[in-house]
Amino acid sequence: MTPADLPRIQPIEHAPLRERLQHRLDRKTKPLGSLGRLESLALQIGLVQASEAPALRDPQLVVFAGDHGLARQGVSAFPSDVTWQMVENFLAGGAAVSVLARQHGLALSVVDAGVAHDFAPREGLLIRKIGPGTADASAGPAMTSTQCWAALQAGIEVVRGLPGNVLLLGEMGIANTSAAALLLARVAGVPLAECVGRGTGLDDAGLAHKRAVLERALQANAAAVSPLDALAALGGFEIAMMTGAVLQAAHERRLVVVDGFITGAAVVVAHALAPQVLDYCVFAHRSEESGHRRMLDHLGAEPLVDLRLRLGEGSGAALAWPLIVSSVKLLAEMASFESAGVSDRS
Amino acid sequence: MTPADLPRIQPIEHAPLRERLQHRLDRKTKPLGSLGRLESLALQIGLVQASEAPALRDPQLVVFAGDHGLARQGVSAFPSDVTWQMVENFLAGGAAVSVLARQHGLALSVVDAGVAHDFAPREGLLIRKIGPGTADASAGPAMTSTQCWAALQAGIEVVRGLPGNVLLLGEMGIANTSAAALLLARVAGVPLAECVGRGTGLDDAGLAHKRAVLERALQANAAAVSPLDALAALGGFEIAMMTGAVLQAAHERRLVVVDGFITGAAVVVAHALAPQVLDYCVFAHRSEESGHRRMLDHLGAEPLVDLRLRLGEGSGAALAWPLIVSSVKLLAEMASFESAGVSDRS
Repeated sequence: MTPADLPRIQPIEHAPLRERLQHRLDRKTKPLGSLGRLESLALQIGLVQASEAPALRDPQLVVFAGDHGLARQGVSAFPSDVTWQMVENFLAGGAAVSVLARQHGLALSVVDAGVAHDFAPREGLLIRKIGPGTADASAGPAMTSTQCWAALQAGIEVVRGLPGNVLLLGEMGIANTSAAALLLARVAGVPLAECVGRGTGLDDAGLAHKRAVLERALQANAAAVSPLDALAALGGFEIAMMTGAVLQAAHERRLVVVDGFITGAAVVVAHALAPQVLDYCVFAHRSEESGHRRMLDHLGAEPLVDLRLRLGEGSGAALAWPLIVSSVKLLAEMASFESAGVSDRS
Repeated sequence: MTPADLPRIQPIEHAPLRERLQHRLDRKTKPLGSLGRLESLALQIGLVQASEAPALRDPQLVVFAGDHGLARQGVSAFPSDVTWQMVENFLAGGAAVSVLARQHGLALSVVDAGVAHDFAPREGLLIRKIGPGTADASAGPAMTSTQCWAALQAGIEVVRGLPGNVLLLGEMGIANTSAAALLLARVAGVPLAECVGRGTGLDDAGLAHKRAVLERALQANAAAVSPLDALAALGGFEIAMMTGAVLQAAHERRLVVVDGFITGAAVVVAHALAPQVLDYCVFAHRSEESGHRRMLDHLGAEPLVDLRLRLGEGSGAALAWPLIVSSVKLLAEMASFESAGVSDRS
């Protein structure tokens, strides 16, 4: 497999369709542009689906989980066991993302991309384990190139097997804000200090320690400069798998709903490989993790909401989902000035 | 009727209940505080309902509609007939708020508070008409004191007749951003220039004209300084009715979901009459109407979303509704560290 084997992505721009969608929006019974962000969203979804009447079918929320060798350096406020324990919690229906997926009728599945735990097989769990956690990136590459390719390929295959036309991304992995920060620094060229945040709740000393560990990781992997080399050296199994998933979803013209900082890191890598992937992405929220603002700026992304979340799991994607549904329903169901007999501007 | 006859409102603060709610939130399987704005929202709703296990029942979206004599001064981009035409559109299911109410299972009703049109009675329409539009506030009071009291009382009675424990507010009335701006200026003491915006889409010349007309209205009603005198002189039938509705809803310990600039003006007046009314209010969104930011600052309100809406109708309240539902569901349904067997911080 080489970068040329990655899924190809078509840009969505189509001027005549854009014009027809804009005209439909402008004839709805409302002041011009008054639905704000929901109008640009409806237009994007129409272009993604190459349709004047886009429809969202069978949305799939997929949570990719993996463990990180970096956790042994004490970069997280929580122990690594929480990764597998939270996977059990997702499957048992007790996590935030479980509650939100139920609320909105989102199909929820969990992918074991590389958790350091053996799960009993069951409904809703896809075991695609590349290994029992990555190696410690502060001492060398987190993944071998072979592992990284296997993770990308697994992400592609997971998406190939999904019904519907929407992928909502979520993740779980103790220490994965560290991996995401490293990728933002290396792939997007953002100064490391601006990429590193408190994750699940580090105090000042913990944050300073995390910065020092991540500085060492960048030095230990100084040669990993291409997007794929950086992904292998600094990423994680779940992040590499999401990178493959995002590329495949865009290839299939699915809408991709991106959650927060860690799912966003997968998009940063995907974007470095295929910039037009962003056409297919909706950024659900701006999180409290301090590097997320820089990440969204780098991607030129306007998130839908800012609720000061810093939970991950896909919780922000699930919370923003009804707004995405609204944008499509408003386009489909609102009356026009003509059909409703409402006077236009004087 | 005198101000002393208005519904009494209890503050919601209850330190032991707040502590119990906070403890429940803090034991959920998530990093401390990581649900951000949704945590303070769940806590507020628990206090409003005086319950550790709050539940939202049978939410009612009520759109109050009225016409404005000020419209004759050319302060809106749309003709006054659009008020009644949009009421028909709400009832026929073709307006933005109709689509959103259907999406979220919100009961939608429309109150004719004083539209200059005779509606055929039907399901979903409450005819509480005080008059066929207000008088022109640029030449004197928009309402008589008697009319204003009748509108307040009608708002109180509308809420008394509603099932459920949540009121979502919406409105319709050509020229009502003018009335809202006047109330923000007079009742909150905000300089008029900061209160006046483009409404449904005025151009620069239209905006300058609107400012000049509203300046005249403030002068023509210089003596109307108390909140109730200002409401009568500068408000509208739908705004006065919403003021009564908000006070009654808070009296009954209903949660009040406030939409944008015009519903917010009713809350500005209600707050001047009974500051503790804010305990019961959730501000759905920050709109693009330029005075709304100042209004929210005056009220110390943190809106849930900012989608650059400027539509009114209750559309922002309906869009934010699933987030409010989420906050309550997360409190009710998430597992705790203990119940899920998840390790807490190391």
